[in-house]
Amino acid sequence: MSATDRLLEANRAYAETFDHGGLEARPSAGVAVVTCMDARVDPYRTLGLTLGDAHVIRNAGGVVTAEVIRSLTISQHKLGTTEVVLIGHTGCGLEGLDSNEFASKLEEETREPRDWSIAAFEEVDTSVREGIERIKSSPFLSRAESVRGFVYDVNTGALREVE
Amino acid sequence: MSATDRLLEANRAYAETFDHGGLEARPSAGVAVVTCMDARVDPYRTLGLTLGDAHVIRNAGGVVTAEVIRSLTISQHKLGTTEVVLIGHTGCGLEGLDSNEFASKLEEETREPRDWSIAAFEEVDTSVREGIERIKSSPFLSRAESVRGFVYDVNTGALREVE
Repeated sequence: MSATDRLLEANRAYAETFDHGGLEARPSAGVAVVTCMDARVDPYRTLGLTLGDAHVIRNAGGVVTAEVIRSLTISQHKLGTTEVVLIGHTGCGLEGLDSNEFASKLEEETREPRDWSIAAFEEVDTSVREGIERIKSSPFLSRAESVRGFVYDVNTGALREVE
Repeated sequence: MSATDRLLEANRAYAETFDHGGLEARPSAGVAVVTCMDARVDPYRTLGLTLGDAHVIRNAGGVVTAEVIRSLTISQHKLGTTEVVLIGHTGCGLEGLDSNEFASKLEEETREPRDWSIAAFEEVDTSVREGIERIKSSPFLSRAESVRGFVYDVNTGALREVE
């Protein structure tokens, strides 16, 4: 049995007791969370979110790329969110990753050009600070009333604000 | 009190009883889930995932953009995932969104050029099918042993496989 099949089995049990029908698409807390794809980060539990509360945008590293600006623009302009919570985390695979070395290995293995950059970073606090700056300075995201950044500790479950 | 402050308060309670320290970055189920940022979708609960099991990649629409290929490449090449689960959902804000109209409004309001496309789609099944195709045909994602696509019903909690 593949992992995917196990997840589908779990979904059947989930749907049997599901009682959250009829929620609106508009996030009820007016928040968009941006974070890393890391398996040790569960934004709902970490932030006490319930279904319908917040948009959750995730990618490798929680890096604020043009694609994140796209998602946040739709979140603010079409679905009314006004607060952004950006969360990096300890032990991120992109922190300190040697982009050049990784790019070379990929090229060797695939012999294909990439239309995306690896977007590794040296240090998580700096990455979060840069991400906040990109969000705050984007002309598409001027509806945000609050943009704050944090580092999540995967070993304690706690958030620390990045000033 | 802002919504963000309420989330931080919830995090303090979460951290007090946190007992998942010491997990490895490598997803234990070997799975990467790609889905929409929609507030009504909680991939952990929907799929019975526990902390450490799977990467979760999310953007507006759950559309397989170049940025998603980036995240999946890192997921497969650096952190060993071999299965991809792509999940669209009913009632998605990007389904049937008029990209031209939205783009015009954005341009009117911001007077700024965009370096990203809106990536709306006409119909969720087709979008999932196209996404699967993009993943399967990417030279960077050849380590995937399984790539399957689903539509999540936000009113029943159930997944339906897209064939």
